[in-house]
Amino acid sequence: MINALIGKILSGDYPIGERLEVCGWVRTRRDSRAGVSFVTVHDGSCFDVLQCVIPQTLVNYSNEVVRLTAGCSLRAAGALAASSGKGQAVELLVDTVTVIGWVDDPETYPIQPKAHSFEFLREVAHLRPRTNTFGAVTRVRNSLAQAVHRFFNSEGFCWVHTPIVTASDCEGAGEMFRVSTLDLQNLPRTAAGGVDFTQDFFGRETFLTVSGQLEVEAYCLALSRVYTFGPTFRAENSNTSRHLAEFWMIEPEIAFADLSMDADLAERLLKSVFRHVLDERQDDLAFFDDRILKGCVQRLESLVSCEFVRMDYVEAIRILEGCGAAFEFPVRYGIDLQSEHERYLAERHVGAPVVLMNYPKNIKSFYMRLNDDGTTVAAMDVLAPGVGEIIGGSQREERLDVLDARMVECGLDPADYTWYRDLRRYGTVPHAGFGLGFERLVSYVSGISNVRDVIPFPRTPGHAEF
Amino acid sequence: MINALIGKILSGDYPIGERLEVCGWVRTRRDSRAGVSFVTVHDGSCFDVLQCVIPQTLVNYSNEVVRLTAGCSLRAAGALAASSGKGQAVELLVDTVTVIGWVDDPETYPIQPKAHSFEFLREVAHLRPRTNTFGAVTRVRNSLAQAVHRFFNSEGFCWVHTPIVTASDCEGAGEMFRVSTLDLQNLPRTAAGGVDFTQDFFGRETFLTVSGQLEVEAYCLALSRVYTFGPTFRAENSNTSRHLAEFWMIEPEIAFADLSMDADLAERLLKSVFRHVLDERQDDLAFFDDRILKGCVQRLESLVSCEFVRMDYVEAIRILEGCGAAFEFPVRYGIDLQSEHERYLAERHVGAPVVLMNYPKNIKSFYMRLNDDGTTVAAMDVLAPGVGEIIGGSQREERLDVLDARMVECGLDPADYTWYRDLRRYGTVPHAGFGLGFERLVSYVSGISNVRDVIPFPRTPGHAEF
Repeated sequence: MINALIGKILSGDYPIGERLEVCGWVRTRRDSRAGVSFVTVHDGSCFDVLQCVIPQTLVNYSNEVVRLTAGCSLRAAGALAASSGKGQAVELLVDTVTVIGWVDDPETYPIQPKAHSFEFLREVAHLRPRTNTFGAVTRVRNSLAQAVHRFFNSEGFCWVHTPIVTASDCEGAGEMFRVSTLDLQNLPRTAAGGVDFTQDFFGRETFLTVSGQLEVEAYCLALSRVYTFGPTFRAENSNTSRHLAEFWMIEPEIAFADLSMDADLAERLLKSVFRHVLDERQDDLAFFDDRILKGCVQRLESLVSCEFVRMDYVEAIRILEGCGAAFEFPVRYGIDLQSEHERYLAERHVGAPVVLMNYPKNIKSFYMRLNDDGTTVAAMDVLAPGVGEIIGGSQREERLDVLDARMVECGLDPADYTWYRDLRRYGTVPHAGFGLGFERLVSYVSGISNVRDVIPFPRTPGHAEF
Repeated sequence: MINALIGKILSGDYPIGERLEVCGWVRTRRDSRAGVSFVTVHDGSCFDVLQCVIPQTLVNYSNEVVRLTAGCSLRAAGALAASSGKGQAVELLVDTVTVIGWVDDPETYPIQPKAHSFEFLREVAHLRPRTNTFGAVTRVRNSLAQAVHRFFNSEGFCWVHTPIVTASDCEGAGEMFRVSTLDLQNLPRTAAGGVDFTQDFFGRETFLTVSGQLEVEAYCLALSRVYTFGPTFRAENSNTSRHLAEFWMIEPEIAFADLSMDADLAERLLKSVFRHVLDERQDDLAFFDDRILKGCVQRLESLVSCEFVRMDYVEAIRILEGCGAAFEFPVRYGIDLQSEHERYLAERHVGAPVVLMNYPKNIKSFYMRLNDDGTTVAAMDVLAPGVGEIIGGSQREERLDVLDARMVECGLDPADYTWYRDLRRYGTVPHAGFGLGFERLVSYVSGISNVRDVIPFPRTPGHAEF
């Protein structure tokens, strides 16, 4: 007998009449007056459940089958049949069923077959993947992650595992988590009374990384096409639906490339992963479109087929100043655009994703390449309709003298960046890259607006349960 | 004109006579008496360099080309030609060359075209990917990582991003790094004089994860087939060639599965990723076979084609006790096997990978399933010829009462594992999984024995540079 995944059964991999065994968890049970129970079973392999038709003639019908509740695990065997009922094309005519695990006190089992609030489900994050929504999120998140690797692999990129524990601060400003094994009850002290980090595990003060960019640049200047895809951390005390203390980020870096090639790469990446998920997870996306955000599938289809529009920051400011819209944050040259501005540009002015380029240097990081005008840098943000910024990147400053001057201007000491400066001393090349927050990507695709609900176990201020 | 990766040129993607442009870094330059310079260029896309033949007729020949040294970056254009020299099939007859980045003080540039010790190269980890060896390591590591994702994806697994910051300790014994934003100069105190972690960022004491297993089990009991692939951490003060404080781990978890299915999965995974890298990175593997470890390719080929041999722990002890070999660590029932024992079994007794199963419970973790004998658990280690243990896994204890008893026996408080126990209260199923240290995998494939040399920026006691 074939042990079959429900996803394979429902996608037509087995002929009617085939004898199959399925393993999974009960979502619902309905007993007909005719002495048959309809038990729907999910195993995580697809969105839909398999209807198992269980006759009362089974030996364990009266003492087990009729006691099945949501969440019970079972193994069922029988013949695949065309279904006359509505809602499914096929069903399993069960002749043997084994209950594997019961639900302890079904009345209090948190995952009932009804709608739960996302807030409640966060409190049972270990059980929420059993729901329709979080099963779909998990599969879509996986599909997107696989698509990211496939895209980069097909374009000749190497995945590089940059360090999580680091002594450097990429942005020069991030709030970081300290990593330490020092005994807090008995901290070693320097002669001056400070904490003696030379006695810590790494012999220095260390933190969780906020970005792998600086390190991946070193690999870019040897392998030409590289990317990171790993966890990053921000110790910001911000309780918004767009921020996590721990999140996954994708950071490609390309050598012999300028900002325009960087924008090309961003557009190709987004279109490729969206195309992939549209093709692979139609079932889950249909659910999101129906229950989470109407139109979220069309939004992806549009993005895949349209051309991204490039615009200079200075032009964007001109448009926003003249558009007559009432913004909460006033617009003037030199501001960092807010979400409301970004969305106006992408949704109302252009009606397509916008690659906004060449920002004033004062609002951008030291490593971004100074343009010839001396006042702007070769930075870009990709603004998507519906959410605003989804990618941020730049061409990097490859000229050592300009980099040093920018560091000083930003209050950084070039001596703290010896190895990073080496990359400009030895065979420097124009290079560029960007960062894509993976949770924002999943959020965009699913329409689920709170990033806490698109990562398995969210870490936010006050929350590190599980 | 086509901008071409050297890997594509050398694998025959372009016809002789095609006009191409390449971008890369100089490895060597040799000037012939005939007034031609032979400059070998690498761009990271493959192991081999492209020979660029640069005639003295170029306008920048005397002031630039003859000054090129190892590490300089350039852009060269010309026609692809069959090479009459030995060592390459094709070469580029350059008609235009642009030097992009010089090497500042070539005499002191750390990456000279000669052999460097691995110890020295660790000190310049930002430049070592430019060497033959570390370029090859980077590509092979990437190839293996992509193969891991492809394997699991093809078998219907979801990649699940389990948290890095955690309040739980999977093994119940690991030495962990604390993650905190508390001000060490001004630690908040509890009334009893301890550190008041309720004032820390997450409202509790938090650490870097030592394993995603417990969390991924929650996803396994909803999605059936899941895996993690991410960084894990051990704050052990061990300075060996086999240990890192930060390393990447792969942890699959399968539902409705026992130890035998777990062993099947491990065997399929290893064979699949080894087959993939043997096919994809022949160039890099040939180099490792030639320069790092003779026979490392044959070792992989053997592993892919042989059958793994399963053996009970108790049988292994009997074999080791009776084999007459002189071991540093004496053998008796109840010991945790040492590398010398594991290698004896795999290399000398069996001559193939061994899956050792059913260890005494006293040397294994609380979550491993207790066998019916009451003294052993359904644990397994995969022992590979040449290195010993490469995978460790187990069937998990799915019975709540047995799990609770084992926790108490191991000195753990079941009350600390409420959510983990819930997985056994609600629709529990037999399930199993294992952990594969990714650096040990790369080390096995490349023959590079020190794991510090198969991860981009190694973190070990006293070392968190870059």
